[in-house]
Amino acid sequence: MSLTQGIHRANQLWPERTALVDGELRYTWKQHADRVSRLAGALIERGLSSGDRVAMLGQNSAAMIEYYFAVLWAGGVLVPVNTRWSAEEVRYCLEDSDPSIVMWEPELAELAQDSLARCTKRFATLPPNEVEAAIAEAAPAQDRRRTGSDLAALFYTGGTTGRSKGVMLSHANLIANAMNAMANMKINGDTVHLHTSPLFHVAGGSRPFTIALVGGTHVMLRNFEPESFLATIERERVTLTIVVPTMLRRLLAARTLESADLSSLQLLSYGASPMPEALLRAAMQKMPGVAFLQSYGMTELSPVATVLEPRFHVFDGADAGKTASAGRAVVGADVAIVDADGRHLGCGEVGEVCVRGPMVMEGYWRNEAATREAIVDGWMHTGDVGYLDEDGFLFLVDRAKDMIVTGGENVYSSEVESALYEHPNVHECAVIGIPDEQWGEAVHAVVVAKSAEQFDADEVIAFCQQRIARYKCPKSITVHDAELPKSGAGKILKTELRKPFWGGSQRSIN
Amino acid sequence: MSLTQGIHRANQLWPERTALVDGELRYTWKQHADRVSRLAGALIERGLSSGDRVAMLGQNSAAMIEYYFAVLWAGGVLVPVNTRWSAEEVRYCLEDSDPSIVMWEPELAELAQDSLARCTKRFATLPPNEVEAAIAEAAPAQDRRRTGSDLAALFYTGGTTGRSKGVMLSHANLIANAMNAMANMKINGDTVHLHTSPLFHVAGGSRPFTIALVGGTHVMLRNFEPESFLATIERERVTLTIVVPTMLRRLLAARTLESADLSSLQLLSYGASPMPEALLRAAMQKMPGVAFLQSYGMTELSPVATVLEPRFHVFDGADAGKTASAGRAVVGADVAIVDADGRHLGCGEVGEVCVRGPMVMEGYWRNEAATREAIVDGWMHTGDVGYLDEDGFLFLVDRAKDMIVTGGENVYSSEVESALYEHPNVHECAVIGIPDEQWGEAVHAVVVAKSAEQFDADEVIAFCQQRIARYKCPKSITVHDAELPKSGAGKILKTELRKPFWGGSQRSIN
Repeated sequence: MSLTQGIHRANQLWPERTALVDGELRYTWKQHADRVSRLAGALIERGLSSGDRVAMLGQNSAAMIEYYFAVLWAGGVLVPVNTRWSAEEVRYCLEDSDPSIVMWEPELAELAQDSLARCTKRFATLPPNEVEAAIAEAAPAQDRRRTGSDLAALFYTGGTTGRSKGVMLSHANLIANAMNAMANMKINGDTVHLHTSPLFHVAGGSRPFTIALVGGTHVMLRNFEPESFLATIERERVTLTIVVPTMLRRLLAARTLESADLSSLQLLSYGASPMPEALLRAAMQKMPGVAFLQSYGMTELSPVATVLEPRFHVFDGADAGKTASAGRAVVGADVAIVDADGRHLGCGEVGEVCVRGPMVMEGYWRNEAATREAIVDGWMHTGDVGYLDEDGFLFLVDRAKDMIVTGGENVYSSEVESALYEHPNVHECAVIGIPDEQWGEAVHAVVVAKSAEQFDADEVIAFCQQRIARYKCPKSITVHDAELPKSGAGKILKTELRKPFWGGSQRSIN
Repeated sequence: MSLTQGIHRANQLWPERTALVDGELRYTWKQHADRVSRLAGALIERGLSSGDRVAMLGQNSAAMIEYYFAVLWAGGVLVPVNTRWSAEEVRYCLEDSDPSIVMWEPELAELAQDSLARCTKRFATLPPNEVEAAIAEAAPAQDRRRTGSDLAALFYTGGTTGRSKGVMLSHANLIANAMNAMANMKINGDTVHLHTSPLFHVAGGSRPFTIALVGGTHVMLRNFEPESFLATIERERVTLTIVVPTMLRRLLAARTLESADLSSLQLLSYGASPMPEALLRAAMQKMPGVAFLQSYGMTELSPVATVLEPRFHVFDGADAGKTASAGRAVVGADVAIVDADGRHLGCGEVGEVCVRGPMVMEGYWRNEAATREAIVDGWMHTGDVGYLDEDGFLFLVDRAKDMIVTGGENVYSSEVESALYEHPNVHECAVIGIPDEQWGEAVHAVVVAKSAEQFDADEVIAFCQQRIARYKCPKSITVHDAELPKSGAGKILKTELRKPFWGGSQRSIN
């Protein structure tokens, strides 16, 4: 079974129903199937072979959905590129994924051109102003219907060692996720899904597969703004969407929330970042007709491993306290807590969260060493630290990989530290997440300067912005007089550095 | 992902919840996992290797569910044998499937022993009186976790050419079916499923996989009797079950239906046989709190290809008339109508129903020629004849394979005709289905005798009963004076023979 199958099915069952909405643009399933097959034809005419990658710098637009399914239809592999990256990061992603064609949207032309100019290899391109002509002129392609362990997408994820890695997800991986989503969120042909979480992350980016599979409706929203979000839900009678806590916080602050008609919205799924209980309570109170569902996972898990169902979103009774968990294993997932020697631990014992099942990625792209380290005997080692309660609910207590989640984006401290160490006046540094009202966590650096008098925090932040994406750069820097506190083994004790910011209590992850 | 995965998950998430109920017998998931792993250990100690078959003559009992999952846990392949077969038919199934171990329940000892005695090969056995000791003594086995296209079961299906064929279903086939069932019927950990349709047919026999996957509760009922059926639903608070129309007819006639507490029953799924509209209307009226869902498919499709959702069970408004259809393609299924040359036909055009998708069997066991004939370019040719309406609903109009459905059992005319032709006084014969109040259709033979005076219908029926299962034998025989009506090509015109019984109108299939 291929990720494109649902397009054929929807085109047979309800060709005249709406497949895709993007502002004024509306396509029926019949039109969508036609455009996808023609764009696939255009890609094949430009030399795409089965298994070739096609990179795209795109927003949450109709063009992005058409890119998704045309590439798969043509037998290719998606590489949705993070549009928040620096040109240097995009260059790395392009050279690493080695696409046979590079695409972008007009709004991202500058980033695309800067990145392409930095590449030593010349890539073939299909620029945005040629796409409509290509669709009009191309003969519709036959769906190549790749399936099973055939590669469907590379989603790039932040690396602990400074470099982003391409996570290889197969058709079977993403179908396993879609079938679970279908059952857990009651997704079917009547579902109208608002795609507002970025499609270049698999959290938002796996949803188009589910919607296509059941023949629902894709509604696109390029940038999350509370006003347009609410207006789109009203206008298109959206039934389902996915948000990160940062979006929810902004939504709750919106003046128009009270008067918005959310009667169509049945379920709001969230994840990717810690959700404070106060925020969840406020959201549930302000949107009483909406069910909430939490997902936990990671790119390497296509991405969902556990869900906290709507019925556990309560603060009283026997199930009180479960909202602090990440929920329970989805159907098909084995979730285990293991110690440093790989031994499985019992209820309540804290260790690394490991997951096995059809959602575990095929591996890291051209990086067998990293794959072997991450997947042992079929178990994906998430790097997250947690425990299972006696009801099988997963509670996360820390992230072994020293990751900061800011506005739904994962930032690996080591990558930020690498950028800081390039600065001539940085003697020693440590990057941590600190509480932030808007972003959940903010990136903060603690630095020992070579010359404290000459240290200019703004200049150092600007220096970082030349090297890594804006959202990864420190928002603030503290200069530390003495050497940073270290363990006996010489490892910087970040827990000590975090204490002043988190009031000495352990950082809450969920 | 393996069909046993759900046992591990349920044992982790809710070890103390009820997994399995059979009369007074009750096992929690913890007990069930323990017994299954020990029975698997016992099978392995008796020589079971990965991919070996284990045959079982069993009713819908706890023993049957434990057989199911222990065999899979041990890496084996299920062969659930039809208990209504004659010893000769069971012998054929055993010799064809070539199991490394044969099991049976005490009630079926005579049939098992008769069949084994007829086999030229000696098979290893695990007799029912040794099972408890085997479970007690064996060390728990590690789950061999076969997966993907690894073979999980052989379900034997009636053959058009007289011999039953083993349908090879893989773990992936049955998981595809289970995931669809999960979404379509809202099956989850709270589901309490009554297994009353025979588990040796895949219609009933695929349900245990779904229930295990989500960690629901299996409730067993050996024989369908309206009184015990209703009493079990009441006692165990059953939420879901599957019936064939014959069962429904008997249920509606039951005195106790009016007073039965069906408040727990959410959904009743049906299929496998024509459902007359009057019967459906009566059932919906007498069980107003129950949703109805129709499934259509065949053993070779694991088994479901289309479903008619509860919302289309209406007789007024825009969707009136859809109850006469078999519903629409499930997620992941391509359904097409093709003509004799394999060309895909348009809406309303009548041709053979073909299905493609992850539910299509791996093939027929040790019968590549039949597999090649049945599956062409991935499309399973069902032998059923029908059309798709403009909304993609499948309407069946006839069965190309000349099959009779009686009480939920498929009977192939050719097999019955072969038995009749062995009788010395049968010159020519044709077997057809005729309307029957209780069984939907009854098997009827039209015979031209060599000597009409000496023809004894009862004796000929008894003669058939020596050769084929009782349910396949003619219930009645008409003796025809002249030669049977034939087409120009010399094919017997069964439509002519059916006319007197069906009032000249076309036989309704759904």
